[in-house]
Amino acid sequence: MPDVASRGPGGLNVLTATEAAAKLRDGSATSVELVEHCLARIAAREPDVQAWAFVDRDIAFDQARARDREQPRSPLHGVPVGIKDIFDTCDMPTAYGSQIYKDHRPANDTAVVSLLRLAGAVIMGKCVTTEFASPVPIGTRNPHDLKRSPGVSSSGSAAAVADFMVPLAMGSQTGGSTILPAAFCGVVGYKASLTGIDRGGIRHLRPTIDTIGLFARSIEDIALLRSALVGAEKATFDLDASRVRIGVCRTPYWGEAQPETVQALERAARALSAAGAEVTDVELSDVFAGIEDSFRVIVRLEGARAMEWEARHHLATMNHWLKRELDPAGRPDEAQYERAQAHALECRRALAKLFERCDAIITPSACGEAVADLESVSNSAFNRVWTLMRGPCLTIPAFNGPNRMPVGLQVVGPAGNDDLTIALADWIAARLDRST
Amino acid sequence: MPDVASRGPGGLNVLTATEAAAKLRDGSATSVELVEHCLARIAAREPDVQAWAFVDRDIAFDQARARDREQPRSPLHGVPVGIKDIFDTCDMPTAYGSQIYKDHRPANDTAVVSLLRLAGAVIMGKCVTTEFASPVPIGTRNPHDLKRSPGVSSSGSAAAVADFMVPLAMGSQTGGSTILPAAFCGVVGYKASLTGIDRGGIRHLRPTIDTIGLFARSIEDIALLRSALVGAEKATFDLDASRVRIGVCRTPYWGEAQPETVQALERAARALSAAGAEVTDVELSDVFAGIEDSFRVIVRLEGARAMEWEARHHLATMNHWLKRELDPAGRPDEAQYERAQAHALECRRALAKLFERCDAIITPSACGEAVADLESVSNSAFNRVWTLMRGPCLTIPAFNGPNRMPVGLQVVGPAGNDDLTIALADWIAARLDRST
Repeated sequence: MPDVASRGPGGLNVLTATEAAAKLRDGSATSVELVEHCLARIAAREPDVQAWAFVDRDIAFDQARARDREQPRSPLHGVPVGIKDIFDTCDMPTAYGSQIYKDHRPANDTAVVSLLRLAGAVIMGKCVTTEFASPVPIGTRNPHDLKRSPGVSSSGSAAAVADFMVPLAMGSQTGGSTILPAAFCGVVGYKASLTGIDRGGIRHLRPTIDTIGLFARSIEDIALLRSALVGAEKATFDLDASRVRIGVCRTPYWGEAQPETVQALERAARALSAAGAEVTDVELSDVFAGIEDSFRVIVRLEGARAMEWEARHHLATMNHWLKRELDPAGRPDEAQYERAQAHALECRRALAKLFERCDAIITPSACGEAVADLESVSNSAFNRVWTLMRGPCLTIPAFNGPNRMPVGLQVVGPAGNDDLTIALADWIAARLDRST
Repeated sequence: MPDVASRGPGGLNVLTATEAAAKLRDGSATSVELVEHCLARIAAREPDVQAWAFVDRDIAFDQARARDREQPRSPLHGVPVGIKDIFDTCDMPTAYGSQIYKDHRPANDTAVVSLLRLAGAVIMGKCVTTEFASPVPIGTRNPHDLKRSPGVSSSGSAAAVADFMVPLAMGSQTGGSTILPAAFCGVVGYKASLTGIDRGGIRHLRPTIDTIGLFARSIEDIALLRSALVGAEKATFDLDASRVRIGVCRTPYWGEAQPETVQALERAARALSAAGAEVTDVELSDVFAGIEDSFRVIVRLEGARAMEWEARHHLATMNHWLKRELDPAGRPDEAQYERAQAHALECRRALAKLFERCDAIITPSACGEAVADLESVSNSAFNRVWTLMRGPCLTIPAFNGPNRMPVGLQVVGPAGNDDLTIALADWIAARLDRST
């Protein structure tokens, strides 16, 4: 991955979660020391990066001290994790990026937060989310270049992991909210299958779209975090190059791809072919025509239902995108919603057929490197359709753009095949030529 | 399965979901006809059984007509499903069995309900739940004998499926709320792994305990319903008798088992051994001592958090069990909660070791056949520990008790191994001698 200007003291905070966990296990570091180094990095960089909605030293250290006194609860024991502020936490404020909830203290944890606590993770704090995870930036900056966007809406989660403030973070994705910021910030992002990681207790849930996302600095760390969340052992796979089949999908949005993205995908295809994989071009068939409109209908109607109370009582506090989104004028009706869902289903079927011919698809993670724009609504053209298709997606920080900003490669798998897709992404990452 | 006194006209409502779906597919029946037969059965039997909190003919027929006009969305297309009234539905009232919410109309569906709609299922209505899924009965009666309990808390879901009112129903389990009513009503019940079926959008969630449960009249139907909910193809397994390893676990509660339960487990063990499986006795090790107390601490503290608002404003409306449960006097503190979770983790580790020696455990589903008592708090002794262990559990309606009431056999698998455990339950069910 690209170097961030300064990593700070080169302390424990630069380790991956897997590396840090090994040190905790063999006694060469404690959770308190790890948290201390992460907090020092946050203190040094937060004024510039603005990745955190809430961090409290005492709450973090209390957890770390308690973990250090215990037998390990899981391989993730003692490792700090940042939590997108869209997820409830019973011991920290949860504002969903909204003025309405600025002093909100939920009584309960979202299920993923509970599960992380039970695995012995240290809940480090709340990472900045845009307002109700909408695509309007909210102040966080890209650690690689503070004038550039970190991507939205899990902006703080991606920036905090990229800037070595924390090895792991939780996010979510409705359009491109995990893959896009991970790609912009040069970390590994993983959006689960729709129901691949439990969504229990999420407020304002759009039940057929909102999906859990994870951030880390290695794919191994993604597998580690996922295993803690699903309560199963880390899966292992024997991948034989001669039997790996990769589809290269340029998508109907290829015209929006910047030169660095075009080059990244072409180079990846060549490298995987050279490594012995069967690499073929695949296309989203005609049935995908208009899928963007169907996506919009579904997001808009489910969003209106999910934020009904907030829209009725607090619309004036909301950003311009949400105001338009929640305006009853132009809201799709049930028949349009049904048609949109039927269209999405047709597309999922077409995609399932396509996955009979390949094990995973490689496709752009974003149009190009992070934009030098901290205010505009983000472009998730290369993400929305995959979210709607419900399968696992990872972005690998594979290449660099013209401004030395990271450029990701996206790996997409069939819905429900998360463990195999993560293993394939790892196999792919090891075979990319990143020399430029 | 035992015969219910009268199945009604012997119409489409007596078919399993798999059988009904085949008829819809080959055009020999329509979803409207299927719904009609189910509604006729409900009309005939509901005054006695009291399985439904809400059914509306128009809402059900509207969905069925729409499904009949469409291409099938999934193998479940057009099949009616009952929904425990603990899950939100955007088009039907949702009262959680509580006076507080008697006119509550949620704006949104719980995620599982959305996913069922997208799979083309007909949401038939809301099945009776006890108040906030507490273990206090609320009026539903066992279709096999109206003087007997249907089990709690997913009472309506179990009774409706058993009584041929609907082929499938959704429930949940915190103690024994799926396995117990399924066993009492003589249907197949399946409690998923904790995070094995998405819990998005569930109100009053106890994040480390509340688990999704399914009800059907065949194990094949359970696999069908599960596949619609997780968005993956139905898994298939080649099970070779000579390699199936079954552990027989009598548990520390064996003393509470009635003669019919003792006999059922012994007969099942003999039959599986005769079928060629490796059958061994297994015991929950000493580390499980006191696990009941740990379970109580976790349920009580998470329940208090989840129902904080209701307890503050509406305690007077609640049943005696909830009043005691939500009383701040005697509430465990955080340190007790941490110790209880640490204990549960130790037990999960011990159980994982045990699962190195067997593929699945067979154990009682309940103390005995359904009790002739429609008022007392239920005994989930054979269920709570498995809920806390987070693995998949199924109950198979395998045997009969002294009063010709059903007696179930419970099959328990390792957390995360739901598909294999369902396949093993199917393998086991086919090999049981049910001659008495």
